[in-house]
Amino acid sequence: MIYLDQAASSFPKPKEVAEAMVAAVNEYGANPGRGGHRLATQARVTIDETRELLKTLFNAPSKKHVWFYQNATGALNQALFGFPFKEGDHVVSTALEHNSVRRPLEQLRERNGLVITYAQPDEEGIISPEKIAQACTDQTKAIVLSHGSNVTGAYLELEKIGEMAEAHGIVFIVDASQTAGVIDIDMKRDRISMLACAGHKGLLGPQGTGVLIVADDYGLTPLSYGGTGSYSELIDQPSQWPDRYESGTLNTPGIAGLKAGIEYVLDNGVAQIFAHEWALTERLLKGLGAQKVDVYGPPLPRKRLGVVSFRLSGFDSHEVALILDEHYQIAVRAGLHCAPMTHETLQTTDTGLIRVSVGPFNTEREVDQLLQAVMDIQQAFTS
Amino acid sequence: MIYLDQAASSFPKPKEVAEAMVAAVNEYGANPGRGGHRLATQARVTIDETRELLKTLFNAPSKKHVWFYQNATGALNQALFGFPFKEGDHVVSTALEHNSVRRPLEQLRERNGLVITYAQPDEEGIISPEKIAQACTDQTKAIVLSHGSNVTGAYLELEKIGEMAEAHGIVFIVDASQTAGVIDIDMKRDRISMLACAGHKGLLGPQGTGVLIVADDYGLTPLSYGGTGSYSELIDQPSQWPDRYESGTLNTPGIAGLKAGIEYVLDNGVAQIFAHEWALTERLLKGLGAQKVDVYGPPLPRKRLGVVSFRLSGFDSHEVALILDEHYQIAVRAGLHCAPMTHETLQTTDTGLIRVSVGPFNTEREVDQLLQAVMDIQQAFTS
Repeated sequence: MIYLDQAASSFPKPKEVAEAMVAAVNEYGANPGRGGHRLATQARVTIDETRELLKTLFNAPSKKHVWFYQNATGALNQALFGFPFKEGDHVVSTALEHNSVRRPLEQLRERNGLVITYAQPDEEGIISPEKIAQACTDQTKAIVLSHGSNVTGAYLELEKIGEMAEAHGIVFIVDASQTAGVIDIDMKRDRISMLACAGHKGLLGPQGTGVLIVADDYGLTPLSYGGTGSYSELIDQPSQWPDRYESGTLNTPGIAGLKAGIEYVLDNGVAQIFAHEWALTERLLKGLGAQKVDVYGPPLPRKRLGVVSFRLSGFDSHEVALILDEHYQIAVRAGLHCAPMTHETLQTTDTGLIRVSVGPFNTEREVDQLLQAVMDIQQAFTS
Repeated sequence: MIYLDQAASSFPKPKEVAEAMVAAVNEYGANPGRGGHRLATQARVTIDETRELLKTLFNAPSKKHVWFYQNATGALNQALFGFPFKEGDHVVSTALEHNSVRRPLEQLRERNGLVITYAQPDEEGIISPEKIAQACTDQTKAIVLSHGSNVTGAYLELEKIGEMAEAHGIVFIVDASQTAGVIDIDMKRDRISMLACAGHKGLLGPQGTGVLIVADDYGLTPLSYGGTGSYSELIDQPSQWPDRYESGTLNTPGIAGLKAGIEYVLDNGVAQIFAHEWALTERLLKGLGAQKVDVYGPPLPRKRLGVVSFRLSGFDSHEVALILDEHYQIAVRAGLHCAPMTHETLQTTDTGLIRVSVGPFNTEREVDQLLQAVMDIQQAFTS
């Protein structure tokens, strides 16, 4: 199997990921922070160490600012539904958002009268910091956006947007699900107020892990109430972090696996990982270009994430994905990729797109096999 | 290490649990329901099969009624914050609740003017169905309670409470975190409207898994909005189940592990597991009784869960737990166990209690070692 669906979930993982999960389950499967005995302590330490690694990776203020959720969606819901928006508050987002940002925002529009502007990409698929700045008004409370698109692979210049946001007292919320572990993110340098990401994509951890990191106290209301293993006597959630925002037993094996994934990223370096993925992406873009395939997103020589979406004219995208899976053992993803506005912008809602996405363990040979398969399919059906 | 903290998280797990998790991570680590290729399909099938097993175990209407969360707390928050309570609605709960029930209810009291009655246990620590019935009024919209106490081991007669609830048109919400996999629960027979439980306790799955099963459509508002891998074009959450209530990528490895845990439970039988735990519990209660230790909860010969809390007079509970851990390699839990009202009722808030809890893999020999250790500690400090 050639796995080119890395934007959905990275595969394979470094072997240490499953090993760490097995150790968590079979060697210290106790409840972290619920009990002082050594097994519970070991579980807590693993989780604390993972917080510390995330703090390091993203230059967060402290490990107490790092909170765990089931997925990036959970993290984003905590950030967005927890934020004290008032009726009429304005938010700037983008037309490239995943439903994990768009659906919460639209709910807030419906429930609380939030006013939303979705900045549109230019003809190259890029949303410049200026575009974001232009969308801001005096009522703008927050900028909420995905660092990188899971459809076009375009990514934004966080630092410039963050500087502008800070200058205007606007909270800057970033969904880094497609970029964490692939592009350097520095919460201080980039002035990010809240950073959410998945653990099972570029951070190479297992599914079941998501992270929210906050730079400061934004008065978030907890999305979930329950036991925290601390201050049990309180009727309300405790005020302490991370306890206040993490109710119930954490996913210790998942977080242990995430730790191993992040260690791989730190050991190999985000820049190195990007360089590898970019080399494959460039090869893919050139190969598809040579075949006159309609490719979406930023054109060469502009860099993008290892995500390339295209359409074969005359084919439904699901049909192509099926052929690639069944006849070529190549896994890609077809459809709208949970990002419908992106497809509205690209005018590809009807057919969807075929998305190929690469990761640190993909090879040139795999890219070449995909290119060959696409060529075969085109020729077989047009000859 | 002798692990007697099973009420916090079961340990060890059947060996198939970690094996299933490794397979999910290393063999088909794709995103379930996000892509039609074979790896994504395999992930989806694993999750579907787990839903099916849960449906069977609890006699739920269909697998679409089975929804996955990070933990039981997430499931309970979805049930309680999602329920369309109106100002002045009345809820009956109990004084034995874990904070995962109590804190959401108290938030609803604060936010929505929910009126709550907490039924109190009798002198044996039991809350009878009659007590629950007496607490109900014409305004009672829901009965929300833990099937079994994580402090006293007392458990309630669901069937009688369910019958009464149904007769009065009251929604019956049960937290089975301490009883799922240990006591037979039948949603139809017991007239349970919504059943929440942890995956990592009696169901023997890994941490990072929680379940909510609904008998019917109660008009729940989703707690979390985001990508569902389906109906991507909709601005709102799709109406389809389980999609509507499961945003973002599920914890495939965790759910695969849970499947293996439930298979163990089904293969061995809930009644057999209870019989084993009860034998150990009876031994523990008799042994502690012989040592004149203050034991809380239902007295013999009344059955209870494999949870026994006690106090050694003159000792802080944490101190005893520390000695047990450090000198005897016995893991128990001290404190309030996230259930402060239970301790108010027992008048043990100041000292907390030492909780010993047993599971399917504990042995008589381990119970005897705990009893010997308690005797040693009592004698060493009183002689």
